Amino acid sequence: MASTLELLEEHRMFGGWQQRWRHHSAVLNCPMIFSIFLPPPQDDTPPPVVWFLAGLTCTDENFTTKAGAQRVAAQLGLVLIMPDTSPRGDDVANDSAYDLGQGAGFYLNATQQPWAAHYRMFDYLSKELPALVADNFKLSERQSIMGHSMGGHGALLLALRLGGRFSSVSAFAPIVNPTEVPWGQKAFSAYLGEDRAAWREYDSCLLMSEVENRLPILIDQGDNDQFLADQLRPERLEEVAREQGFPLELRIQPGYDHSYFFIASFVEDHLRFHAKHLLV
Amino acid sequence: MASTLELLEEHRMFGGWQQRWRHHSAVLNCPMIFSIFLPPPQDDTPPPVVWFLAGLTCTDENFTTKAGAQRVAAQLGLVLIMPDTSPRGDDVANDSAYDLGQGAGFYLNATQQPWAAHYRMFDYLSKELPALVADNFKLSERQSIMGHSMGGHGALLLALRLGGRFSSVSAFAPIVNPTEVPWGQKAFSAYLGEDRAAWREYDSCLLMSEVENRLPILIDQGDNDQFLADQLRPERLEEVAREQGFPLELRIQPGYDHSYFFIASFVEDHLRFHAKHLLV
Repeated sequence: MASTLELLEEHRMFGGWQQRWRHHSAVLNCPMIFSIFLPPPQDDTPPPVVWFLAGLTCTDENFTTKAGAQRVAAQLGLVLIMPDTSPRGDDVANDSAYDLGQGAGFYLNATQQPWAAHYRMFDYLSKELPALVADNFKLSERQSIMGHSMGGHGALLLALRLGGRFSSVSAFAPIVNPTEVPWGQKAFSAYLGEDRAAWREYDSCLLMSEVENRLPILIDQGDNDQFLADQLRPERLEEVAREQGFPLELRIQPGYDHSYFFIASFVEDHLRFHAKHLLV
Repeated sequence: MASTLELLEEHRMFGGWQQRWRHHSAVLNCPMIFSIFLPPPQDDTPPPVVWFLAGLTCTDENFTTKAGAQRVAAQLGLVLIMPDTSPRGDDVANDSAYDLGQGAGFYLNATQQPWAAHYRMFDYLSKELPALVADNFKLSERQSIMGHSMGGHGALLLALRLGGRFSSVSAFAPIVNPTEVPWGQKAFSAYLGEDRAAWREYDSCLLMSEVENRLPILIDQGDNDQFLADQLRPERLEEVAREQGFPLELRIQPGYDHSYFFIASFVEDHLRFHAKHLLV
């Protein structure tokens, strides 16, 4: 049965439309919600898409309400798609910690119990949701992707593994080397098991040595981010990018922290970076 | 005892600072929180101030996180101050309805029990909080004020009653004639009693006939706002403004609703309107 979309909310915004949709996900085996911003039509050309993947504890609404991205997307004629960060619901395994279970899907396909029945965010975002939006909205096939923190990890790993899918990738304060930091080690142990060989395909620092498509990458990182030293370490990805010939620009932003106040301050730069690669 | 300020949060944003402060309010007889955005210093001149008063159910955080105003304020060199909408705390009278009690102060001085002990938002915003910020921040005396819904009512009544205090006033979907709409009648009955003579000094449509200072007014109103017909009726203020010679521009925005998506879409226009009158 084809998945059907139920419109939950719709708001006029910057001459376009901010919408919130619910659908049944066969991949995740639960109802899911995503948000989408449709810019004012500029001509008959289907608009390109920028995906935004959110961080730990977030839903489709954080970036939608706090980043101020729609203003720029409306100007540039970009569609924004904001998925949720994990499967949801009373039937979905969970944990009391903020960094495991619902709100903490880590954009991977879990293989371990009790997670494997629902936690398949990699398949959801690489296959099911793109097919669903392509069926229901008139969109260009040109797409870019960005994310924040855990969602920066998600954006980077999807861009690296789905070679050719995305024209560019960017991230705010991303987890780049999850196999070597506490957030990633905890999540990967639970979702993927203790065999670290299974972790490699979800670590951007490791993936970067194994893929062909050298797409452009922009990363912003605040130097007053409480998670910088223990969890993020973007200089590790910068080093691999230099070795492997990826065009990666890492910008250290003085005084900025891990919040959406940081994201809002630089989201225009990210959307203009993507537009430069999408609108060619 | 002078009120002291306790810094709760501070975030770098658009080259300036977004801060959240707590202090004891002698007027409201409870601890209060306000947010402030300090733009990047442009020169040694103290920056002018724009106050934003929020609507029913809101706190200092709604506009702070959702409106995208800091980007424009940083460009224009404007300070933004976002107060809370009512006294707060376990010792403060409350009601289970969203439109009475905490989160619904209506920017007036209550005279009736159980409200009179704490609900004095008019005095708090006309005297105590301005004095507190003047003592603790280096600000220009040039100020403007704006608000949303109940906070649009607050902005208009403060601007009308404090002649000369504000250079300009603007509002998103304001309550302009509270004595004649359900939200206002319910709140004024509770806070001010059944004698409607006491209501007059809190109704912008009535105040406009009684005051001297004809400051410029900008109002945006979405025509898809669910509260437009029953609670808002901005055409009533437009009519009085025309009779009384106030320079009021009312813009009906097609398709827009009552949400912060609407506010975000037009906040730049409002800040540029205020800057035109502040930076002269």
